[in-house]
Order: sequence, then structure tokens, then C-alpha cells
Amino acid sequence: MLGQKIARALLARGGLAQDPGAPAKLAELVLFDQVLAANRVEHPRAKYVAGDILDRELLARACAPQVDAVFHLASVVSAGAEADFDLGMRVNVDGMRGLLELCRTQATPPRVVFTSSVAAFGGELPDVVLDTTAPTPQSSYGTQKVIGELLINDYTRKGYIDGRAARLPTIVVRPGKPNRAASGFMSNILREPLKGEPAVCPVPAETRMWIASPERAVGTLIHAMELPAAAWGWHRTINAPGITVSVAEALSALERVAGRETVERVRFEPDPATARIVLSWPARFATDRADRLGFERDAGIDEIIRAHMRAASE
Amino acid sequence: MLGQKIARALLARGGLAQDPGAPAKLAELVLFDQVLAANRVEHPRAKYVAGDILDRELLARACAPQVDAVFHLASVVSAGAEADFDLGMRVNVDGMRGLLELCRTQATPPRVVFTSSVAAFGGELPDVVLDTTAPTPQSSYGTQKVIGELLINDYTRKGYIDGRAARLPTIVVRPGKPNRAASGFMSNILREPLKGEPAVCPVPAETRMWIASPERAVGTLIHAMELPAAAWGWHRTINAPGITVSVAEALSALERVAGRETVERVRFEPDPATARIVLSWPARFATDRADRLGFERDAGIDEIIRAHMRAASE
Repeated sequence: MLGQKIARALLARGGLAQDPGAPAKLAELVLFDQVLAANRVEHPRAKYVAGDILDRELLARACAPQVDAVFHLASVVSAGAEADFDLGMRVNVDGMRGLLELCRTQATPPRVVFTSSVAAFGGELPDVVLDTTAPTPQSSYGTQKVIGELLINDYTRKGYIDGRAARLPTIVVRPGKPNRAASGFMSNILREPLKGEPAVCPVPAETRMWIASPERAVGTLIHAMELPAAAWGWHRTINAPGITVSVAEALSALERVAGRETVERVRFEPDPATARIVLSWPARFATDRADRLGFERDAGIDEIIRAHMRAASE
Repeated sequence: MLGQKIARALLARGGLAQDPGAPAKLAELVLFDQVLAANRVEHPRAKYVAGDILDRELLARACAPQVDAVFHLASVVSAGAEADFDLGMRVNVDGMRGLLELCRTQATPPRVVFTSSVAAFGGELPDVVLDTTAPTPQSSYGTQKVIGELLINDYTRKGYIDGRAARLPTIVVRPGKPNRAASGFMSNILREPLKGEPAVCPVPAETRMWIASPERAVGTLIHAMELPAAAWGWHRTINAPGITVSVAEALSALERVAGRETVERVRFEPDPATARIVLSWPARFATDRADRLGFERDAGIDEIIRAHMRAASE
């Protein structure tokens, strides 16, 4: 989902710059995924490769003759990695290691942006998560994401890549069908009612989440890529900006934006398994470092819902 | 080194208890290492297996028919993992994963104690490292140790093992020959002069380290094993207690304990590569959680040197 959005953004803006604001360049854009996306962007400079991230030969061919910038988004999602531990380790850890090893063979160390997650945090947390708060993931997905961050930092320190890892907030409103991410409900209870469909909320109304719109997440990842190495310095992981929104606040905004009958399509049906994962994630952050580096946050949940409605009607 | 000391301690105390202070039991003690230790303890209940930790079949045979408690000490050391990145990843990450997978196949999840390290920390750190300080390793060794901690926590959360990870201070005085650990100099400048040999100190006299004696480290690891799961709770990593000692303080203690001519065998010869690794490690900790859990620290550097002299003369 984010991959297609990044591709569209890069094609629209003419590629990537070495510094934010510098001229953007794009020679070729390779999109690697398990299966080709249904509504994929077609462009003379966009090349698609479908396959397994663990297939090192295919990956190497996809990146030949050289790759300058890699957005690494491939991941077994939270509920998926919890249901199938081995698959999560294979894709989220071994798959990433294969990709990093490939990057290491490049003549010039490529910039690599890794999408980490708030799932890096869990357990007993301070009320507000700081840049210095220790990651203590309470899901296999979160564990694998933190391992990825550590690899990004160490490969960078060794000079094998020029890596950057951004812990993205939960993306709301995700377009398309529900996926296996435990965080999906917040998108479902906004997107489905807007389509005239019923939706189930598996967590209590007071449940708060740390969220960002898909557009903001794309902006975060592109900014992470374009920031010069010197701006990042020795530590290559940031908590990306987001906003804190409760289920109740999201439904109030939905009513303001789309009316009472839309909100009434949502019903509450507690699901302890989902609630346990979601409630282990922190909902409030102080993202001082990201703010200083020029990362931005959404204006509010009303604006996020309106932007989703505009995108859905296009 | 620690493996042999743990073996001797376990054989002397009759094994391990389910709770500190409860009766100890020992059916069989299997010592797995690359090569058999030279001065190894021989005992009817001690069985030795020499081989590669990546040899999963050999490891499985060594642990058959079942294993209840595993001390995981095997590791490519700091300077070694820095010099050969691939070897460090293979042994410290893949080797550990193989061991954890083997533990996962046991009928009852075994207790697993993992020796992590202060090398988990690095970069810009607070003056005193707290239990909540985020690990930001600045060496491949430290990175691999933190990955190990994350796996210990997640395998435990999943119910595959009952894991515990202790970040040990630098062990001083290490017996035997110098190894490739960047931290080895602090032991060298005490042990070698006591043997009448010259020693080189590669870092400035004001360099401080967070240290523990070998006996204390063994005590820490056995306590980590014997604490019940409930005492550990949801978070299975601790900063183990140590003491902060500068090179100057260590040499003063050496003079107090062994005289001026002993200290004069040490000469300073700066080695920037070693200094860079050592200076990236924190030298002061507040180990509140470990203290509450009953972990203990050494009385002081004089006592550590005297204990080493007693052990060396045995």
C-alpha cells in the first residue's frame, strides 16, 4: 500500500534529492513485491518485479546494475507475525538481512529507509514515549522491527549502507480491504462506514492510538531518504511524528464530517486478542528529534478523514 | 572462561534450584564449546561436547533427551565481531537462533540465561545509564547482543523458553591469556604485572569501566537462572550490578595490594581502535531493578585483585 503511494509520489515529483529541496532525480524505479499490486502505477521508468524477498538472486537481478536508494517496506504484519512466528522471522528478519547484504555489495553504499513501527514499544511505558525510551516490544512483529532498526544502525556504522529507520505511527485511514494488521480496526471503522458498509470496533471507545495519514507516512519516508547523512548523525532511528486519537474522537470526527447515519454503521464487539496487541502500543510520543529534523505531523483527525474521502473519490 | 567457572560452581553447590535458596539439583551437566577447555573440570556428571554452535544436529544430540536449563555464553567477542562482521552475525545471531529453536522443541520450555553486555550501550548516553535507557550499541558485538536480548524476550513471551538476559559488566580480572575482547586491557594490566610480566594499557589513565569479578559474574548468571519466572515478569533483560573503576584507580589498587614494582610493569601505549570501542561503553549505571531482584556487586577493586591473586595461586 505505502509502496504504491511512494512510487506515485516519486514519479510525480521527479524522483529523489540528495537534500530536501534540492533537484530531484530518477533514473529507474523498481517495485519489488510478492505479487503485483492490482491498481499499480504504470510509467516508463517504473519496473515491476514479483517474487520472494528471500530469493536473493531475483533480488540481485532486480537491483542490477546498481541501486542508490531503497525503501524497505516488505513485512509480515503484526497479527500475521504473531500467528506464524517462523514466517515473521523469515521475512522480517532474514528477508531484511538478505536485502542489506545485497546493498552491501553495491559500489556506493545506498541510502536505505526502513519502515519500523510504534510496535517497537510495549509493556510498562512512560505516559509519553521519548526519543530515549528503550524499545520493549510485546509482539513478534515489534521484536522483528527493532532487530531491523539495529541492523540499519550497525550496517550504517560499518559503512555498508547509509541507513535510516522511521518508527511510523499506525496508518489511518488505510485504503482498500482490511489486512491482518491488529491496528487495522481504526481504518476499518472510518473507511467502511464511508462506503456505506458496517464495521466492527474490537476495542473500547477510550482506546487511543498514535496515527498518521498515508500521505503523511509517505512524506515521512521520503524526508527520511532525502535528509543528508550528516543530519542523521550516528543514530539512525527516529520516532516519526503522529497525532494521538481515541476511537471516540475518531467517531466524533466521522460524525462531524459524514453525518450521524455513517457513524451508526460502527458497532462495538470486543476482541481480546486484538485489544491485547493494540493496548501494548504507546499512544503518546514527544518526537523532539524528528521535529528538529523537519518531519511533520497531520493537522488532525477531521483533516485525515476528509483527505481519505477525497482520495477515495478520485 | 565463564563456562568453566559456572560448571565448577554448579558441581560444588549440587546444581540449580527452582528458587534462590531452594534445594539444588543436578542430573547432568553438558558443556558445549568449539574446543575442549584445557583446564576443564572433570566430574561423573559433566559431559563435554566439542563442535560448532551452528551444527544443529550436534547441538540437538548434546541436549538429548531433554534440557532444563541453558547458560548461553558462546560468542564471538567484541574486537572479533568488529574485525569479521559476518562471523559475528553467524555465531552471535544465527548460532543463538539455532539454540533457541532447539530449546523451543523441548517438552517443557527450558530456562535460558543469556549473557549480554554493557556493549548494548553506546553513543551519546546519559552520565548514568538507567534500567530504562535505550540500547544504542556502537559495535557489531553490542548490536548482536541486543538482538539476542530481543529474541530472549520474544521467545519467552511466546512461551517457547523461560528466558533471562543479563548485561554483564566487563569481567576483571579475566584469568588466562589475553583474548580479542577490546575490554581485555583492564584485566591485562592487573594480571600480567602480578605474574611478573609487562603489560600495555591502550587507553588513558582516566578511562573508567563498569566491571565485575569473574566470581560475581558467575553469581549473577546463576541468580538469573534461579529466580522464578514471576520475579522476572514481562521484561527479561537486566543491567547487572558492577562497580565503576578507572585505569588510575585500578593501578593504585594494584600498588596497594602488590607494591610499586608490580605497577611499574604497566606502560601506556595509546591504541585508538581499542580506545574507540571501550570509550563507547558506559561506565556508570543505576541498577535499581537488579538490586531489587537480589543481584549483587563486588565490594571494590582491591577485593577483586586479592580474589584474583588467591584464585591464581590455587
